[in-house]
Amino acid sequence: MLGQQKHIKHMASSSHPSAPCAACKFLRRKCIQGCVFSPYFPPEDPTKFANVHKIFGASNVSKLLNEIAPHQREDAVNSLAYEAEARLKDPVYGCVGAISVLQRQVLRLQKELDATNADLIRFSSNQNIIMNPSSSSSGNALQNPNVLPPHYGNYSWNYNPN
Amino acid sequence: MLGQQKHIKHMASSSHPSAPCAACKFLRRKCIQGCVFSPYFPPEDPTKFANVHKIFGASNVSKLLNEIAPHQREDAVNSLAYEAEARLKDPVYGCVGAISVLQRQVLRLQKELDATNADLIRFSSNQNIIMNPSSSSSGNALQNPNVLPPHYGNYSWNYNPN
Repeated sequence: MLGQQKHIKHMASSSHPSAPCAACKFLRRKCIQGCVFSPYFPPEDPTKFANVHKIFGASNVSKLLNEIAPHQREDAVNSLAYEAEARLKDPVYGCVGAISVLQRQVLRLQKELDATNADLIRFSSNQNIIMNPSSSSSGNALQNPNVLPPHYGNYSWNYNPN
Repeated sequence: MLGQQKHIKHMASSSHPSAPCAACKFLRRKCIQGCVFSPYFPPEDPTKFANVHKIFGASNVSKLLNEIAPHQREDAVNSLAYEAEARLKDPVYGCVGAISVLQRQVLRLQKELDATNADLIRFSSNQNIIMNPSSSSSGNALQNPNVLPPHYGNYSWNYNPN
């Protein structure tokens, strides 16, 4: 959806080749054909470049884009814009604050899931006793694949901003 | 734990006031008293500044630090170092890739939790029928507070890098 919007904006930008892209307008320079910023910073969205420029600097973004395959540049610019916006909203933690929130949410959900699975095993054992009083409760009656621990990804962040 | 390590490093740095901090050494300038980088970029960890410099630029980091209260600067530098390292490892998605992984993990855990709660309600209803065959199963016999939906935080990221 976001990708589609960006594509539409890019198309809109391309339909006015004489209009400089938001980056060249911001940097007050001529937007030449083949400008590395032009496809990703349409003139209709000046804030996107302003944010990215303020946090990363135009030169760093330009270098980064030149090191990335063309088909991945739009995603790269959008992730930079996301990081820049998060850093402007929260200068101390930036989007690492979101990582911290999500990591705590994962831990809380895992704890809830463990508790619910324990309840389920208890119910299952009770039901076994009611239906078959002579059987012993093993506590492992329910082999629910949902109790498998989740994969935590490659990144970790141990700070707690709150 | 990480905070303690940083503090130890900072202490180590302070114990050699003549040694320039990693930032000043990298930028080949004199590390004067009151250097904004010195407390957070000890000479023992040159990579930390090199990464942050490559992604954000020394000037942007210096501006950012001057806009932040001194007691929050260490956290700010460490979150910048985390973002920089993530961007160097994954130039396209940076730490936004971690956000994407965590968001998918939250959704998966929530789905697992919903399924386990549904199992628990079914077990509870069955047990009611066995113990009290005349009672009707409401499906709401179990009022488990764990079924409450989680808070999803302020940030969202809709890209799927895979």
